[in-house]
Amino acid sequence: MSVEKLQRYREQMRTELDKVVDFWQKYSHDTQYGGFFTCIGKDGKIYDELKYVWLQGRQVWMYCRLYRTMERFNKPEILEAAKSGGAFLRRFARIPSSGSPWKCAFCLTRDGKALKVQRTIFSECFYVMAMDELARVTGDKDMQAEAAQMMDQLVYWVRVDPSGLGKPQLSGNTPVCSMAVPMMLLCLVQQLTEARSGEEVDKYREVGGWCVKQILQHLQRGGTAILESVSSEGKELPGCEGRLQNPGHALEAGWFLLQYGLENGDQELQRTAVDKFMEIPFLTGWDKEHRGLLYFLDVDGYCPTQLEWSMKLWWPHCEALIAYLMAYSHTKEPALLERFSQVYDYTFSHFSDAENGEWFGYLTQQGKVTLDFKGGPFKGFFHVPRCLYMCEKILDSILNKQET
Amino acid sequence: MSVEKLQRYREQMRTELDKVVDFWQKYSHDTQYGGFFTCIGKDGKIYDELKYVWLQGRQVWMYCRLYRTMERFNKPEILEAAKSGGAFLRRFARIPSSGSPWKCAFCLTRDGKALKVQRTIFSECFYVMAMDELARVTGDKDMQAEAAQMMDQLVYWVRVDPSGLGKPQLSGNTPVCSMAVPMMLLCLVQQLTEARSGEEVDKYREVGGWCVKQILQHLQRGGTAILESVSSEGKELPGCEGRLQNPGHALEAGWFLLQYGLENGDQELQRTAVDKFMEIPFLTGWDKEHRGLLYFLDVDGYCPTQLEWSMKLWWPHCEALIAYLMAYSHTKEPALLERFSQVYDYTFSHFSDAENGEWFGYLTQQGKVTLDFKGGPFKGFFHVPRCLYMCEKILDSILNKQET
Repeated sequence: MSVEKLQRYREQMRTELDKVVDFWQKYSHDTQYGGFFTCIGKDGKIYDELKYVWLQGRQVWMYCRLYRTMERFNKPEILEAAKSGGAFLRRFARIPSSGSPWKCAFCLTRDGKALKVQRTIFSECFYVMAMDELARVTGDKDMQAEAAQMMDQLVYWVRVDPSGLGKPQLSGNTPVCSMAVPMMLLCLVQQLTEARSGEEVDKYREVGGWCVKQILQHLQRGGTAILESVSSEGKELPGCEGRLQNPGHALEAGWFLLQYGLENGDQELQRTAVDKFMEIPFLTGWDKEHRGLLYFLDVDGYCPTQLEWSMKLWWPHCEALIAYLMAYSHTKEPALLERFSQVYDYTFSHFSDAENGEWFGYLTQQGKVTLDFKGGPFKGFFHVPRCLYMCEKILDSILNKQET
Repeated sequence: MSVEKLQRYREQMRTELDKVVDFWQKYSHDTQYGGFFTCIGKDGKIYDELKYVWLQGRQVWMYCRLYRTMERFNKPEILEAAKSGGAFLRRFARIPSSGSPWKCAFCLTRDGKALKVQRTIFSECFYVMAMDELARVTGDKDMQAEAAQMMDQLVYWVRVDPSGLGKPQLSGNTPVCSMAVPMMLLCLVQQLTEARSGEEVDKYREVGGWCVKQILQHLQRGGTAILESVSSEGKELPGCEGRLQNPGHALEAGWFLLQYGLENGDQELQRTAVDKFMEIPFLTGWDKEHRGLLYFLDVDGYCPTQLEWSMKLWWPHCEALIAYLMAYSHTKEPALLERFSQVYDYTFSHFSDAENGEWFGYLTQQGKVTLDFKGGPFKGFFHVPRCLYMCEKILDSILNKQET
């Protein structure tokens, strides 16, 4: 593929990222109570004022990352928005919990009252991600220490004793390993260790190694399938739960593993990331008739029980773009750039809204927009800007190498 | 409309009910562990062995009701299947609970180990429904007493203190009234009072009156909208939750209210049931472009956040058929029979599977089958046979009156 084509991709990523940042700056800031609105209609109108903690944490993280690592976003208004979101989270997201020092709520009212709490680790994970990145920007050591302390709690819940999460123990419960858990912890390990060293970092590296092993357990059936949930012994689970495949999630795990393999000089892991976690989801998840990535699949070809299984969601496409471009940038295999192009064409022609900016999130299998909002309870300022940001960075690095 | 047309409807309901009962008798019985499989593929194949308590209870109830009230189903194999399901439920569904005598699990393994428990009342409701109907068939007084005792517990959770359900109290929680709760209790009141009298029945009648008042609170905006959730003062709630409409649920509430109004000679309630709970959901929920009833709507026209909002599900169509036919049978207004016909044409041409029997449950907005199983975690032997059973009964009564 020509340098011109790569340059056009970079230009497109750059322009789109600017538009997306503009959209959220313009519509999502709650100047009265702090934090961010995330239920935002197609033209920017707020249709619900609830504040979802995952999305608050992700937006703080994304703003800080842009501020810290991309010169054109190193602007006081980005920093101020991130700090306002961080203050809102610190003030309201943490709630008392029986059996643990604290948990994070899942959802807050506009003025910060806790409305719902999940019996999982994800609100806490995005809280840690936000606080550590914000601490890197502001130099606030207390905040960094708080993130580290919460990380210890997360590792304890996952590896030692989950009872503090509040799930009741029932006679039929067998421990289930969901790929989301080690993926999320690995993401935090990369966040907390970046450009740091010392004892703390060694501790996290051990956690990182454990996460990688856990993720690799989801490669099943003699290396031909990535299954979303496995037993704690790394075996296939019975029924629908055991057969579930989530192509977008496997692709996201793919680039997490590739990044980890590159940082640690582990070539075998790099190969597994590309050949398994990026190739299999495409072979099974790409819709040959209507294009785009399906949301869920059953490895034995049964119909998944999730009503949205055949829909096309924005975030698997974001993760696929990052995965294939990162893989191409390190292997230089043309087939991977071809994959990237294929996903790119579908994604930019179906999700991006030229009229009002930002992306639609939810299409029918046939590619028609069926939920037309730009932000919702699970769609915030995260997958789209992270994808555009990472693709721009990767394209920079490919093009800079080619130019020198 | 001609008598011939009504006779054709009755014939169709009758044939279809026979086929549906055959399907579940053939494929759903677990002869090894008792109870019923409900995850059943399009051609009858079991694709998951989990046993969902809602669906176990509903199948016991439906079998007993058919056995007790329709001569052609008064057969030993129907009774045996119901008793086996009832024994499975009594042995395994009840689990110890802190703060309440017991709760029901939501989901069990094939051999009856509890896997999940919900912090709501619905598993318990279907347990009561099953046990009371089974006791009517078997004459088991202990079982009837157990159902009555659980009913007292349900009323206590709903009207006095919900803390035994296990939901954490959070600072932002305001009590929300979901229409499902009084609907379900009203359904149980009708179950427990049918053809009985005495002190117990008077107690339930008071509960029934309370349920009707609660359901009517969901008629909002000057009588122009049925909202799924309202505040405990009967006011509209803020945000998406407050604006949510579920046309199928409103129609089901409609025939519950009409039935209650008829039993109690309340003509105003009968009128409200038809003019509001049956008319509004059709005006707002019927898809003028593709036909069929949409699953969710926002009363202000925003896009709902439920990914399945635009899909066509089987059960709202079942409830609509019952509602319009019942309303026609009592009012003799031709417009209501016209509505019935319109829903009937869509339903029988889209959901019913002529090839393998039973109905598909989930279509795209355009009417294409998108989940092709006949039973799943939320689709069992209930809405389809109850609809066919009730429509056959109502058509019998209309035709018998016309013939005499």
